[in-house]
Amino acid sequence: MEYGVIMAGGAGTRLWPLSRENQPKQLLPIVRGKSLLQLSYERLRGLLPPDRIYVCTAEAHREEVLRNLPELSADHLLGEPEGRDTANAVGFPAAVLQQRDRDAVFAVVTADHVIEPIDQFHKSLRAAFDVVAKHPDVLVTFGIVPTHGHTGLGYIHRGEALSGSPGAFRVQAFREKPDKATADRYVESERYYWNSGMFVWRADTVLKELETFLPQARKGLEQIASAWSTPRRQQVLSEQYPQLPKISIDYAVMEPASQKRGSAQVVVVEMPVQWLDVGSWPALAETLNIDDRDNAIDADAVIPLDSDGNIVVCRHPGHLVALIGVSDMIVVQTKDATLICPKEEAQRVKELVGKVKDKFGEKYV
Amino acid sequence: MEYGVIMAGGAGTRLWPLSRENQPKQLLPIVRGKSLLQLSYERLRGLLPPDRIYVCTAEAHREEVLRNLPELSADHLLGEPEGRDTANAVGFPAAVLQQRDRDAVFAVVTADHVIEPIDQFHKSLRAAFDVVAKHPDVLVTFGIVPTHGHTGLGYIHRGEALSGSPGAFRVQAFREKPDKATADRYVESERYYWNSGMFVWRADTVLKELETFLPQARKGLEQIASAWSTPRRQQVLSEQYPQLPKISIDYAVMEPASQKRGSAQVVVVEMPVQWLDVGSWPALAETLNIDDRDNAIDADAVIPLDSDGNIVVCRHPGHLVALIGVSDMIVVQTKDATLICPKEEAQRVKELVGKVKDKFGEKYV
Repeated sequence: MEYGVIMAGGAGTRLWPLSRENQPKQLLPIVRGKSLLQLSYERLRGLLPPDRIYVCTAEAHREEVLRNLPELSADHLLGEPEGRDTANAVGFPAAVLQQRDRDAVFAVVTADHVIEPIDQFHKSLRAAFDVVAKHPDVLVTFGIVPTHGHTGLGYIHRGEALSGSPGAFRVQAFREKPDKATADRYVESERYYWNSGMFVWRADTVLKELETFLPQARKGLEQIASAWSTPRRQQVLSEQYPQLPKISIDYAVMEPASQKRGSAQVVVVEMPVQWLDVGSWPALAETLNIDDRDNAIDADAVIPLDSDGNIVVCRHPGHLVALIGVSDMIVVQTKDATLICPKEEAQRVKELVGKVKDKFGEKYV
Repeated sequence: MEYGVIMAGGAGTRLWPLSRENQPKQLLPIVRGKSLLQLSYERLRGLLPPDRIYVCTAEAHREEVLRNLPELSADHLLGEPEGRDTANAVGFPAAVLQQRDRDAVFAVVTADHVIEPIDQFHKSLRAAFDVVAKHPDVLVTFGIVPTHGHTGLGYIHRGEALSGSPGAFRVQAFREKPDKATADRYVESERYYWNSGMFVWRADTVLKELETFLPQARKGLEQIASAWSTPRRQQVLSEQYPQLPKISIDYAVMEPASQKRGSAQVVVVEMPVQWLDVGSWPALAETLNIDDRDNAIDADAVIPLDSDGNIVVCRHPGHLVALIGVSDMIVVQTKDATLICPKEEAQRVKELVGKVKDKFGEKYV
């Protein structure tokens, strides 16, 4: 059977003061009133019933996540006692799903991006499930068709086409974040994709690869899985999980597997979608309505007098934000904090959050 | 006997969002935690006991003013049912004081400015009381010794010195706000003062001049005064006051009197003080502490990362204001509104308040 797993970890400090340690980016209602997690869940719901959708997130965010996703049952929330990077965030659901269904095939999707059109997303997922149905030993990764030479992303170099599966290719190599010239060359060649961090595979296949490349993780996950349907679930989870080796699935499995060092083969399925990372205020602004002076506003009450090109987000109900002659500024307000910075300084929000923590402890972070 | 009257009218929209229609500028704790009204009261208290200090203000602000000034008795608050400009704001106390004391001499002071040093203020007031003691028919106005060619103020052109009264001069003429070249010429000549809008005179003298130049006001004020110590006080006040002609004391009395068209003479006593109008955010910032990057901050919690020359005032307890790479901005926050504008746009706050009123009614003004 086919399943979907949403990986919803990560803090998202670059959206401070809206995102907080206990209110990470994926849970914020930032895109037309919905959270990225809700959008990600809805995307999967187009293909799968609720009983076959899981969310892997921090146990600490359990309540928030369940509130965010009314269709998600508590039993389908896989709560990590602590973050152990993506090798375990996919290994954990793989182990749990294999307990449920020896033939489980599952998609791993992220909740960091706005993806459009959804039809195309579904088509690519469908194609990947088909590849795995034909080739059980394949690990499918999704490649976003790049629109420009992005230097903040990893790339996937595709090899020969997989016969009988349009849009699917052997992976020749994974590439680290390139410099600008290299990125442009990748895009021009039309043989590279952005590495999406999304996958489709059989649970037994990915567990087998973990056994090959990361045996310590496999062992811990096995213990978790065998205790899963017993009263010892939480106890074993909290004992074992923190000891899993902290490493990404890319480093642990995908790269060595792509070099044919395991028993699985790595295939990339292309996903020709708009793939918008809303991990910074200027990126988020692209999802907002823009007024006739290029202000992106998400607030109850704003008066932008002779002000252009600003991003104003106010989640302080009823609060009025008034601007006079302000240009290209980011203004974000919550009940207890206000951020003001030029758009061009947006990448420094994370640095700022560090200073806030240094000066005020946990109060505002 | 000598008395002091503080004129505390005016809305002060240029300090929005801190100043509001029901919380005018003079009542805000903006200078080292004190209000301008409190500072003005303290200045008079250096010369006079509480029983001889009155405040003339809007009746609507009675409770706020009494809270602001614990030493002020309710009976010493002269509440105007509505504003009828300064001719009545000085005529009203004159009429009330004359009822109390036929020989009342009183100083009229404003609550719009920070004045330093206070000693020098006291010296000038003392000198003015002495002038009036010697010359009962004199109207004394105070002239601030100008520090620069201010184009936003009226000027007083002094004439011959008053013999036996150092620092006192006949007034040759009052001058309207000049252009810059004229203002500079005034300052250079050393024969001009800034018109302070503060006065000392006998109650009977100013009432006599009002009778000459503004008989309609004199008549209404007389009715108010004769009902003052009776149960009909409020009734007569609310009937008569709104009918008083709305005009400034400068136009109604001081200018014609300075042209010797009445029976009193007009004298200017110089006041060599720092006279800081805190009627705008940049002016107010001069009363605040400045950090090593020229930020003027009055707030619980501010992080100005690589930010210079800003004014940050936050009256939203516990709220954090965080700036990254922001320069020469005004950021003022209250519980329900935030203003952001470059310092150079500060004079447009009043215009903004108009827009706020247009769009949101009375909610934020």
